[in-house]
Amino acid sequence: MYGNMMQQPLLISSLLQHAERHHRDAEIVSRRTEGGVFRYTYADLAARCRRLANVLQGLGIQQGSRVGTLAWNGYRHMELYYAVSGHGAVVHTLNPRLHPDQVVWIADHAQDEVLFFDTTFLPLVEAIADRLKTVKAFVLMTERQHMPQDSKISNLLCYEDLLENASSVYAWPGLDENSASGLCYTSGTTGNPKGVLYSHRSTILHSFAVALPDGMNCSATDTILPVVPMFHVNAWGLPYVACMVGAKLVLPGPNLDGQSLYTLFEAEGVTLAAGVPTIWQGLLTYMRENGKRFTTLRRTGIGGSACPPSMIRTFQQEYGVQVMHGWGMTETSPLVTMGVLKDKHTGQDPEKTLALQAKQGRAMFGVDIKVLGDDGNEIAWDGKTPGELMVRGNWVVSSYFLSDETATLVDGWFPTGDVATIDADGYMQITDRTKDLIKSGGEWISSIEVENIAVGHPGVAMAACIAMPDLKWAERPLLVVIRKPQMDLREDELLQFFEGKIAKWSIPDEVVFVDQIPLGATGKMLKNKLRESLATHKMRVRAK
Amino acid sequence: MYGNMMQQPLLISSLLQHAERHHRDAEIVSRRTEGGVFRYTYADLAARCRRLANVLQGLGIQQGSRVGTLAWNGYRHMELYYAVSGHGAVVHTLNPRLHPDQVVWIADHAQDEVLFFDTTFLPLVEAIADRLKTVKAFVLMTERQHMPQDSKISNLLCYEDLLENASSVYAWPGLDENSASGLCYTSGTTGNPKGVLYSHRSTILHSFAVALPDGMNCSATDTILPVVPMFHVNAWGLPYVACMVGAKLVLPGPNLDGQSLYTLFEAEGVTLAAGVPTIWQGLLTYMRENGKRFTTLRRTGIGGSACPPSMIRTFQQEYGVQVMHGWGMTETSPLVTMGVLKDKHTGQDPEKTLALQAKQGRAMFGVDIKVLGDDGNEIAWDGKTPGELMVRGNWVVSSYFLSDETATLVDGWFPTGDVATIDADGYMQITDRTKDLIKSGGEWISSIEVENIAVGHPGVAMAACIAMPDLKWAERPLLVVIRKPQMDLREDELLQFFEGKIAKWSIPDEVVFVDQIPLGATGKMLKNKLRESLATHKMRVRAK
Repeated sequence: MYGNMMQQPLLISSLLQHAERHHRDAEIVSRRTEGGVFRYTYADLAARCRRLANVLQGLGIQQGSRVGTLAWNGYRHMELYYAVSGHGAVVHTLNPRLHPDQVVWIADHAQDEVLFFDTTFLPLVEAIADRLKTVKAFVLMTERQHMPQDSKISNLLCYEDLLENASSVYAWPGLDENSASGLCYTSGTTGNPKGVLYSHRSTILHSFAVALPDGMNCSATDTILPVVPMFHVNAWGLPYVACMVGAKLVLPGPNLDGQSLYTLFEAEGVTLAAGVPTIWQGLLTYMRENGKRFTTLRRTGIGGSACPPSMIRTFQQEYGVQVMHGWGMTETSPLVTMGVLKDKHTGQDPEKTLALQAKQGRAMFGVDIKVLGDDGNEIAWDGKTPGELMVRGNWVVSSYFLSDETATLVDGWFPTGDVATIDADGYMQITDRTKDLIKSGGEWISSIEVENIAVGHPGVAMAACIAMPDLKWAERPLLVVIRKPQMDLREDELLQFFEGKIAKWSIPDEVVFVDQIPLGATGKMLKNKLRESLATHKMRVRAK
Repeated sequence: MYGNMMQQPLLISSLLQHAERHHRDAEIVSRRTEGGVFRYTYADLAARCRRLANVLQGLGIQQGSRVGTLAWNGYRHMELYYAVSGHGAVVHTLNPRLHPDQVVWIADHAQDEVLFFDTTFLPLVEAIADRLKTVKAFVLMTERQHMPQDSKISNLLCYEDLLENASSVYAWPGLDENSASGLCYTSGTTGNPKGVLYSHRSTILHSFAVALPDGMNCSATDTILPVVPMFHVNAWGLPYVACMVGAKLVLPGPNLDGQSLYTLFEAEGVTLAAGVPTIWQGLLTYMRENGKRFTTLRRTGIGGSACPPSMIRTFQQEYGVQVMHGWGMTETSPLVTMGVLKDKHTGQDPEKTLALQAKQGRAMFGVDIKVLGDDGNEIAWDGKTPGELMVRGNWVVSSYFLSDETATLVDGWFPTGDVATIDADGYMQITDRTKDLIKSGGEWISSIEVENIAVGHPGVAMAACIAMPDLKWAERPLLVVIRKPQMDLREDELLQFFEGKIAKWSIPDEVVFVDQIPLGATGKMLKNKLRESLATHKMRVRAK
């Protein structure tokens, strides 16, 4: 027997319609690649999305067609999010930081039919346009005045011209809520990139979870600035959440250095920002060096890679900004866990709270987590025993897009490739990537644990811990460190810093100081590259 | 083309499983009808729900079967919420405040197969048991020691005995998320009661909306006390929300007087409570008379009928408790709008904020509102022109249960029977029930507006404004008032109080002081009864 309630599909166009009706004059403020700041309202956004949907129609985009974007966080990218998905097509956010060959491979694999891109990426697109077999039209996201006089791209269209000439009348189609709405490729460190095809339903349910008080806690009194790129797992869903709750949205454009961000935070009264630790490191450094304070920022979502406890402490204790440490992947939309407290933690010792917040957090309703031992059985939630983290739920991938990898799931759970513990309260902590674990004398050493301690030292800017082969112990940890400017940190000094903070056998045998650590397109350290470049490094044998 | 995300139905059993896994030791604290306070955890709840599901199975309850309850807010009622719906059956919460004939009519219409009831309602059930044609089993929600020696009910079962003898092994079935999960009848003032049949999907989506920061803002750091009964639109969804977010839940049992509530608030550290204005009036009176303060309460949800501005002021300014004034109906699950602020209201004059909060609020994502004029066209959102309030969305009824009323919806919208305005920011204000409006000299007078002013007078305990026939003006307002104890408020004094607060022609012509105003089963004033009892009242003709 069915209930007698109305049946309305969960659609991305409903988010836009909600914002247009109920938050008409809430603002979207964007830094433009062409310079300057652009501001308009949700009512303006909705009106322009209707024009854009007509443009897509005119370009032959049908339900299910893929539309590629190479763009920063800006209002036109936001328009593509809503117009493409609302029209029933799939917005495919390409990562412009990837190698051009990879961009070509991915756009080709996705069969993108139109490519929209910011002025920043004109050289990139000019270099690869001929190789993009399925792309029928290239649209530069700018006005006529910023169009190149002469481009290598023969069929280059102007975004604003297209919109100006399009009808403003468009009715968002009714769609099956399980229809594909967005596509994002994981830039895996091994093998070809794999596409995750989101649906309207998964996007809406994920947005609800992200907006919850124990998610990123978003309301109409917030001004939200996603530093995390819209080409990186949909900026953690915040462009959708903003419409759902009617928050003011600030889109930072291409410049994500500390000064640019800080200026924007203060000018627009940002209350909630979200990004990866490396970005926040830049912001905090700028603020410390220039004696700045936040006047409006209340909370920051941190994820993408583990947030060092020292950063949580700095944000909370020095700047009064609450850190919400989360975890997720492209395959999980991304938010699965958030490091937020429970009633039982109220009034506990702040150091305990800090330790808890350093974990990646507990599962939100709608998804579930577990850890599996080598034997494939679920490990008890003791907060100690690590195992492979498995995830399932309404916004978790079930298979990759147009992929031969059929056996992605294990018993209906997605294997993340992360190693984690879960404690009795459900708080999960990533101890490592499966492939980054260091096995020494039969014991596992967590590279992340070692790195977190290292970056807690005032002289360390960045640190990576990798396994080196060892005749006696099988593997031993090597610590690779970038010093902070003007700091002459010595190896013995840094190794001493580990004493008492970690099991003795987990302390690295050696520190190598470098000028650079290779970063991937999403800002994560590429430890496989490090391992390659240090393959011939001879470890010093140390007294144990 | 479909997305490649996991497909998991939105089920009420998922809420329970989430709470059991991720909030094992969060507490549920209940005042028992048998006396005393009972406390256990979500893990305990889940374990007992599995036993209860086996009991239901044993009693022949199948998917779609209706299971009736006559119960206060307590842990066993909570178990029925989850076990009945989780098992695939329909939990039908009967309102014990209705006339016994109505209870019989409703249980009969719903075809309830089993009736679970609190000890309080043994006399009621004994009186009507013979007339309940479809009920095969009666279960008294208590232990063996509180069972009656000798009952008129031949097949009276003991809840705790049943649970004790049931297996603890039970796997929640996979269900279609559109399956019926709950049933609640509206106690309409005219015609037969009508049943609203909720689904798992509508319940989960509603719970997300209620838990949002701009809903009732619920998190795992909250201790939630629903004063609103679990037999009244599922206590506004809070028993579901509590599992979704892992909040501590406090269930007050039968005693809802000011002292009982205040004691429980303080003993259990309640942070969020929800109820109707008449209940809060009792609580505030108790607190004022006894000089009490809240030490933990942060927010209160108020709905069911319009919250007088004076009550909002008292909660916020005297007690520092934020009021969340909302609106909904049995037909809407119930939450549709919440009177919460936007970014643009930050820092505005507190009196403006108070005026805004007196409105019923703006629509949450997932539902939409509009007002229709007499011509059936949508009225512009000017905050002034009233029209009939129409609602649609994922948790709004599309038709009544087993009802012949086929044409419930108008163009896919549910006509609420309320008259309201909507302002440019989307804030809706109920001005009246369609049938309570007073038409005087071609102008509409809002009875709610008149009542709100009246209860703002320190001498007024309760006030109802009704239309009286008038030869010259067609109708004129009569104000019916209950004085506060020991207050000798005079008519001219009260009428003077209206001067300058309302249009002159809206001021009532006369005040009648009474000892009682008839209240319906959900605590609302029954103005139709008042109109009946005052039908022969001769209005004094006043100088205008």
